[in-house]
Amino acid sequence: MADYVYGPGRTHLFVPGPVNIPDPVIRAMNRQNEDYRSPAVPALTKILLEDVKKIFKTTSGTPFIIPTTGTGAWESALTNTLSPGDRIVSFLIGQFSLLWIDQQQRLGFNVDVVESEWGRGADLDVLEAKLRQDTAHTIKAIAIVHNETATGVTNNLATVRKLLDAYRHPALVLVDGVSSICALDFRMDEWGVDVALTGSQKALSMPTGLGIVCASPKALEASKTAKSVRVFFDWKDYLKFYEMGTYWPYTPSIQLLYGMRAALDLLEEEGLDNVINRHTRLGTATRLAVEAWGLKNCTQKEEWFSNTVTAVVVPSYIDSGEIVKHAWKRYNLSLGLGLNKVAGKVFRIGHLGNLNELQLLGCLSGVEMVLKDVGYPVKLGSGVAAAAAYLSNSTPLIPSRI
Amino acid sequence: MADYVYGPGRTHLFVPGPVNIPDPVIRAMNRQNEDYRSPAVPALTKILLEDVKKIFKTTSGTPFIIPTTGTGAWESALTNTLSPGDRIVSFLIGQFSLLWIDQQQRLGFNVDVVESEWGRGADLDVLEAKLRQDTAHTIKAIAIVHNETATGVTNNLATVRKLLDAYRHPALVLVDGVSSICALDFRMDEWGVDVALTGSQKALSMPTGLGIVCASPKALEASKTAKSVRVFFDWKDYLKFYEMGTYWPYTPSIQLLYGMRAALDLLEEEGLDNVINRHTRLGTATRLAVEAWGLKNCTQKEEWFSNTVTAVVVPSYIDSGEIVKHAWKRYNLSLGLGLNKVAGKVFRIGHLGNLNELQLLGCLSGVEMVLKDVGYPVKLGSGVAAAAAYLSNSTPLIPSRI
Amino acid sequence: MADYVYGPGRTHLFVPGPVNIPDPVIRAMNRQNEDYRSPAVPALTKILLEDVKKIFKTTSGTPFIIPTTGTGAWESALTNTLSPGDRIVSFLIGQFSLLWIDQQQRLGFNVDVVESEWGRGADLDVLEAKLRQDTAHTIKAIAIVHNETATGVTNNLATVRKLLDAYRHPALVLVDGVSSICALDFRMDEWGVDVALTGSQKALSMPTGLGIVCASPKALEASKTAKSVRVFFDWKDYLKFYEMGTYWPYTPSIQLLYGMRAALDLLEEEGLDNVINRHTRLGTATRLAVEAWGLKNCTQKEEWFSNTVTAVVVPSYIDSGEIVKHAWKRYNLSLGLGLNKVAGKVFRIGHLGNLNELQLLGCLSGVEMVLKDVGYPVKLGSGVAAAAAYLSNSTPLIPSRI
Amino acid sequence: MADYVYGPGRTHLFVPGPVNIPDPVIRAMNRQNEDYRSPAVPALTKILLEDVKKIFKTTSGTPFIIPTTGTGAWESALTNTLSPGDRIVSFLIGQFSLLWIDQQQRLGFNVDVVESEWGRGADLDVLEAKLRQDTAHTIKAIAIVHNETATGVTNNLATVRKLLDAYRHPALVLVDGVSSICALDFRMDEWGVDVALTGSQKALSMPTGLGIVCASPKALEASKTAKSVRVFFDWKDYLKFYEMGTYWPYTPSIQLLYGMRAALDLLEEEGLDNVINRHTRLGTATRLAVEAWGLKNCTQKEEWFSNTVTAVVVPSYIDSGEIVKHAWKRYNLSLGLGLNKVAGKVFRIGHLGNLNELQLLGCLSGVEMVLKDVGYPVKLGSGVAAAAAYLSNSTPLIPSRI
Repeated sequence: MADYVYGPGRTHLFVPGPVNIPDPVIRAMNRQNEDYRSPAVPALTKILLEDVKKIFKTTSGTPFIIPTTGTGAWESALTNTLSPGDRIVSFLIGQFSLLWIDQQQRLGFNVDVVESEWGRGADLDVLEAKLRQDTAHTIKAIAIVHNETATGVTNNLATVRKLLDAYRHPALVLVDGVSSICALDFRMDEWGVDVALTGSQKALSMPTGLGIVCASPKALEASKTAKSVRVFFDWKDYLKFYEMGTYWPYTPSIQLLYGMRAALDLLEEEGLDNVINRHTRLGTATRLAVEAWGLKNCTQKEEWFSNTVTAVVVPSYIDSGEIVKHAWKRYNLSLGLGLNKVAGKVFRIGHLGNLNELQLLGCLSGVEMVLKDVGYPVKLGSGVAAAAAYLSNSTPLIPSRI
Repeated sequence: MADYVYGPGRTHLFVPGPVNIPDPVIRAMNRQNEDYRSPAVPALTKILLEDVKKIFKTTSGTPFIIPTTGTGAWESALTNTLSPGDRIVSFLIGQFSLLWIDQQQRLGFNVDVVESEWGRGADLDVLEAKLRQDTAHTIKAIAIVHNETATGVTNNLATVRKLLDAYRHPALVLVDGVSSICALDFRMDEWGVDVALTGSQKALSMPTGLGIVCASPKALEASKTAKSVRVFFDWKDYLKFYEMGTYWPYTPSIQLLYGMRAALDLLEEEGLDNVINRHTRLGTATRLAVEAWGLKNCTQKEEWFSNTVTAVVVPSYIDSGEIVKHAWKRYNLSLGLGLNKVAGKVFRIGHLGNLNELQLLGCLSGVEMVLKDVGYPVKLGSGVAAAAAYLSNSTPLIPSRI
Repeated sequence: MADYVYGPGRTHLFVPGPVNIPDPVIRAMNRQNEDYRSPAVPALTKILLEDVKKIFKTTSGTPFIIPTTGTGAWESALTNTLSPGDRIVSFLIGQFSLLWIDQQQRLGFNVDVVESEWGRGADLDVLEAKLRQDTAHTIKAIAIVHNETATGVTNNLATVRKLLDAYRHPALVLVDGVSSICALDFRMDEWGVDVALTGSQKALSMPTGLGIVCASPKALEASKTAKSVRVFFDWKDYLKFYEMGTYWPYTPSIQLLYGMRAALDLLEEEGLDNVINRHTRLGTATRLAVEAWGLKNCTQKEEWFSNTVTAVVVPSYIDSGEIVKHAWKRYNLSLGLGLNKVAGKVFRIGHLGNLNELQLLGCLSGVEMVLKDVGYPVKLGSGVAAAAAYLSNSTPLIPSRI
Repeated sequence: MADYVYGPGRTHLFVPGPVNIPDPVIRAMNRQNEDYRSPAVPALTKILLEDVKKIFKTTSGTPFIIPTTGTGAWESALTNTLSPGDRIVSFLIGQFSLLWIDQQQRLGFNVDVVESEWGRGADLDVLEAKLRQDTAHTIKAIAIVHNETATGVTNNLATVRKLLDAYRHPALVLVDGVSSICALDFRMDEWGVDVALTGSQKALSMPTGLGIVCASPKALEASKTAKSVRVFFDWKDYLKFYEMGTYWPYTPSIQLLYGMRAALDLLEEEGLDNVINRHTRLGTATRLAVEAWGLKNCTQKEEWFSNTVTAVVVPSYIDSGEIVKHAWKRYNLSLGLGLNKVAGKVFRIGHLGNLNELQLLGCLSGVEMVLKDVGYPVKLGSGVAAAAAYLSNSTPLIPSRI
């Protein structure tokens, strides 16, 4: 009964999260519970905490693997570093940055919301203006999504760092890397990010259940004086158990720990840079298909193109929700809905996580058939052809098979 | 390498959580991610929310299935019903009630801590005295563990209700049922419990990852005015998505949802009352073994005996930590450590969740051998014989096999 | 290390066996061993034996689920019905019929080999001639593959039956349905097939390990006097245990029994006729793509087109083995090699088992890129467009999702 | 429905096969099908064939991993080395040697059946007499079970070899090691065994599905001239594919190959000698319990005691079948039935495969309760105490946890 919506063959999962889990990760999690106070679990955790830093490209950061979701990871980032009333500059560019800002406000911070049209990136000119004016350093933190999942927009974090440096501004940089880390080029140390976070069900390609938060030394320092009320999300409890070598202030999921071990092993085997290149390939191929279909990318400029999710704008006579519904009902294809301001106007193709070229091409041919079904005059094969032309030139041999 | 502590045969998991997962639950979770916005996941969730009420014995309660642990479930119960500064009466009878009280204080509540000697239950005479005096109803909530996992003490919740009724006191009753619900007789509606909570890795016999919180209509009402700062744990967001029929304010674990479906199906098949009887059998058998060994139960009176965990007091010349370590190293047996005040003095046998008689007898014979190994003059076979004498008379045939 | 050839994303498995296993079947098999002499396993087996008849479209047949492969199933069919020296008419039309004939000869039968050019079906004119001449009924059996996996040729079994009836010839009809049953229209009772057989790893979409053989009453009768030496494959031992109600003369695979239960449940849910229609769709789409690429189908006439496997002839300047190798190395795509006489000349696309439209389109776009890589002047997107044009008109909604 | 006999907690599987599978092996098999003609599967197979020799303690043998059961492995051993009419000396000491002899006769060999009372080992005096007389070397093979699973009797193979050497007799030695190899001390090369065989579901602790047969150079030589009709079981086909480096004459089970890899890895980790010692411990402990219960071992002399299975004789007023039925119905305990001559008279405790001390003690306490239930005046705890007294002195620390 639990599978009452079963359709033959594989489900083609192309939402921007949760994403496809590699078989070795599913296998690694296919296991019993264990006593997390035995010597085995701390030993496993210790190495995980060391290895997980690589996905943030940090050596100086301190990671926290929290049994929560991205929303909880946001809360962890904010409450551990800031006090009620603190001023944050935050960029509203789509549904997920909006939700984060809502959280910031409900947690009692004083948020300067810098809004862009959905489909555009964070307005860094406004940031610059604010930094220039803020000689008193009343801005305590910049909160920014690296990649806005709702619109497929990637913000330029290097520029954020440059501006802060230019104005010698000490504000903390808090980055939502939920749909970027492990897929896009993210450089915590180089860009001076103070808190970066992601969720296990995104590019790390695991089930939902872990919020992974990484804190710079400056963020850790800030946590000592931050007055926000927190217990479950309090880094202090984690740090106390890190020191004791038992690592867990409360019960972790044994299955997810072994799953993360397997996921990091696969990442190591493929190589993070190769993973990023693969996402670049899949993102580029998707955009070429969209162009071939004669449709518009929600993302307005190339500088913001996202290699993890593409929001496709549909003609006004089509409800994008119908596309998503129909794809699932007829072709066992899961696409992302348009959310809030772009509801009905865009559908989203998630191309992050454990995916390869032929999976994407199968998805793109499915999208073509769905577009035809809903009345858009697409030329069947056009998007696939454009994508394949590019992929055929750019896809490397699988290293382990050469 | 992840299994570098592998020993032959099955690991005998007798910590009081996380507990043994039934094979059908492991099987049900052995699956890919899915789009949680497709029609399938809300349909599954809707039935889960209906069925999960049964474990609380409530028809009027509203359940929340939160991607968190027991610690998060505590926070959910407190912050949704209370405001900073609110007065709570809270009972400190062991390590877990202590941790909850610590959380209550850090969240800014005004806690009347009623301490008992570890091994004794909540002092309800003190509660009565406080209620009698509190004609102004300054006490906003009673916070109490149904079963203290650290000492194996079960509190009498029916009496708590009687006292509140006797004094017509409107205080909310918040119950930590982490090591009781699905194993001990717990009656949310009958006992007028306002918030009850448990974690998936306890008697429900799943992996860690879900905090399951159930709110009475009175608690829901309280949540509308409670001023505690909360976002991730805010019931309001859940209720909004319940209303929309999409159910999830943020991404749930697909695997845990299907796992919970399987766990509730097994519960239905065995029957909750049969499950509770099984725990009574296993608890009684364990206590008979402890007595046969000539050792003391940490729980001081029969009225508080716990059917989910037994804390065994060791002679002063033995470090109970050695017992736990040795059991794991020689017999692949995981026992619970003594915590805080009873560290080194007790070890714990968890007998909750998906367990049967022969598993327990195997554990008990293991404990006997370990006791001998650490120098306690146990008569090998004595505890097993006492337990078996009882089980042999009380164990029913397996209904599906008659 | 076992996964040292791991590539990112899903492996695209398009060999004509073993095929893709549905997730519910993998889940069902994720389990411990059990005592096969407990009441549970016979009860499970009894229903399996009843339900498995449906895949043969028989009500009068007796099925045997044998722990072996297709090669063993062949041996079971032959040795239980025939005696050394018996005359068999057998059709050589490709590598698998060739191997079966080799087995027939090594088992001591007197085989009239009727050879066709590879790419053509069984020459039924020759059969007719032989039957006409054989008034003495020296021909004891006709052995024929329903679908030759090496060339993608489907034989016309209805005609075989008509010829036998026309000449009132009592020869047994032994059918290799390895790459047809559960995918092509196969009618054991209607066509008067005496022994039909398949393997679990083919259209039933399970792991390798079960040879499934079904015997008509006439075949069972023949088994009483057949003199071929046999023990492991002897139906007599099975029939003895069927009678006793314990079913198994030797240990079955518990995992495969539960897997078969799940596979038959999925078949029931989708409906065998819908499964056959799906294979017709996928086969037709594949052939349209081949045509669009300007390549030839190894199968020479439409009447023999196979809906489970397509053997594609490559131009003489290309080695088809390179295509298979390259597909695996660059695109994680598994295609079938050309075998024996057609080695180097054809590659095969298996489109049987648990597959859907978008999986096939992903494969076809992969084949296009590989063709380009090996120097064939394919127009990228051409095959996918042709296939999609057809599928877009013929694919029904998924019934459980309407 | 497939689990309609579900009982709470773990099933205690103590039949002498199929046995308990280690979790890492179940995990390794939790996977999709793969193309067995890709480079990955031959590479995996090559190492498996090398490593599997260790379980036979042979360096000169050639192993065959056949998709079949023990019965098929028997047939493989016989038909590849002998010709119809060949004289075999074969020992009938229980149900499994009886079944093998039945097979030998049905395959057309001329069998000298040397029968012993069930509960006694092979009568090697008779063997000596036959060898002495057979100066013409008409005896072509000795067929003997290393361990008779029905009675728990281990034969002395070293003596068989000594006798053959003493009389310089060239007869082949064919050994059924189904319930011995990987558990008892078995030395193919040292004892001059020509064909040894086992099944995957026995001490190797995998699912049923692989017959593992190992042939000495002399056996391989014999296979070149053996006239027994065979195809599926013909070593020649395997050897041809070994030479080609593709290894498989027909489709192997991908899942079982990866499962065997995991099983051999665990064997390597524990060490074969430690595995054998563990079986000695568990066998000895079981016999001590039987003695403490005042019951008789079916095995009549210590020299034949089996460390993989113990057949326990029940008093004449008890039907041993009731014990087995009751154990399953009340305690979720699977024991072995008495077979044929000892039906109703013995029940069997299988203590082979992936088992540890506490699992066995749980089983023994279950047997005690069942004995009491069926009316035998057992002292509860007596057997467990005797077993524990021994195990407590003999069980080593788990090496990976020291």
